[in-house]
Amino acid sequence: MCEDCGCGDTKLVSLDVHESLLAGNDRTAAHTRAHLREDGVVAINIMGSPGAGKTALLEATAGALAGTRRIAAITGDLATERDAERVRAAGVPSKAITTGSACHLDAEMVHHALHDGIAEGVDYLFIENVGNLVCPAVYDLGQEANVVVISVTEGEDKPLKYPVMFRKADLVVLSKTDLLPALPDFDRAALEEALAHVMPNPRMLAVSARTGAGIEKWINWLEQMRETERPQTAHAHAR
Amino acid sequence: MCEDCGCGDTKLVSLDVHESLLAGNDRTAAHTRAHLREDGVVAINIMGSPGAGKTALLEATAGALAGTRRIAAITGDLATERDAERVRAAGVPSKAITTGSACHLDAEMVHHALHDGIAEGVDYLFIENVGNLVCPAVYDLGQEANVVVISVTEGEDKPLKYPVMFRKADLVVLSKTDLLPALPDFDRAALEEALAHVMPNPRMLAVSARTGAGIEKWINWLEQMRETERPQTAHAHAR
Repeated sequence: MCEDCGCGDTKLVSLDVHESLLAGNDRTAAHTRAHLREDGVVAINIMGSPGAGKTALLEATAGALAGTRRIAAITGDLATERDAERVRAAGVPSKAITTGSACHLDAEMVHHALHDGIAEGVDYLFIENVGNLVCPAVYDLGQEANVVVISVTEGEDKPLKYPVMFRKADLVVLSKTDLLPALPDFDRAALEEALAHVMPNPRMLAVSARTGAGIEKWINWLEQMRETERPQTAHAHAR
Repeated sequence: MCEDCGCGDTKLVSLDVHESLLAGNDRTAAHTRAHLREDGVVAINIMGSPGAGKTALLEATAGALAGTRRIAAITGDLATERDAERVRAAGVPSKAITTGSACHLDAEMVHHALHDGIAEGVDYLFIENVGNLVCPAVYDLGQEANVVVISVTEGEDKPLKYPVMFRKADLVVLSKTDLLPALPDFDRAALEEALAHVMPNPRMLAVSARTGAGIEKWINWLEQMRETERPQTAHAHAR
């Protein structure tokens, strides 16, 4: 814990505790993943800075999938249920996790949130993490894929400056492209170069939740996730 | 440490460790603050999301204070020295702290960065924290004031969703106001209401580092910081 929060002078004290905590988190995440796979639910962990447009992407996704796919959402924030309320208003059953002062969700929080059956019978479960470009990357939640949302206003160098997050990303969604006319200096090639530098398998889609531009490609990516072979885990109840 | 990273299942294990770590951090911060006060240096801790415009604010500040005030900067990032390079290019002596996977600066890192004398003889020391709207708020660095930068694209509800950060802010700088014509739905009153809800003494300035709008008011605020009575601490070397 202290290790990934990085207090340099506390590494010796915290390393053992941290490793056992992460191992416990990973066990819970594996358990959740096994259950979700059994039930045919594709879980997507959506991460990004505060204000990157994670909730707006969920709202646009709800609209685009309405009538064809059943979806549910878990939204994480330090305080308020505003994101869950927004997603609910878009027609998606949603559960809020308020973390207090915690900068990320963990597998136990998600496992607990699933216990009331919100993901039963759905095709996709979207887990909107706490807005943060550092801490959430470390915690497996039981998802099939990590998506990092970055808006066109955040700067092309963010993947280089926050490599841990982007290294874990299966897909980067470049959001708020409707603002590009107001950003004459935005350099997409520089962003793609930065992503290529840190992502093992660089993939980026550009979208505007406001205008709907690019949402179809995002939906196609989600549908591809369903077609990917996902191994059934034998011992979902083994923990 | 674990406490503010919020792993619910580890609170008992981590609470004692966390409290003693924070106490150690606070001692180092008090030591730094005493030294800086003795030397007439006003230290400002600049926090905010990745891409909020912290470095751009420093660049604009460098331009506005050139020839009247001497300033230095410490910039924190997980990786790269890009921010320090940008601030140096604006004529400001700058030292980069790269934190690896750590989501915030701490007092020890800042104290160490100051040891080569970068703040000697300056009027202002700007400490640009790691881009993060959660973790940096917990760590005193020895600053006189906390400034939180939030851009007009981040959403008016951020103070309610990240209250810990805004509760600690002495000033909020609303950045990138040049983008407002492209954001017809931006609701400044809603943002101010949210700030009033969480800040003990709500203060906000709106700026555009790109056009220079509002920078004069920001400079005035900085100058007021110099005029505030700051108690000299007797035992700067007592730790």
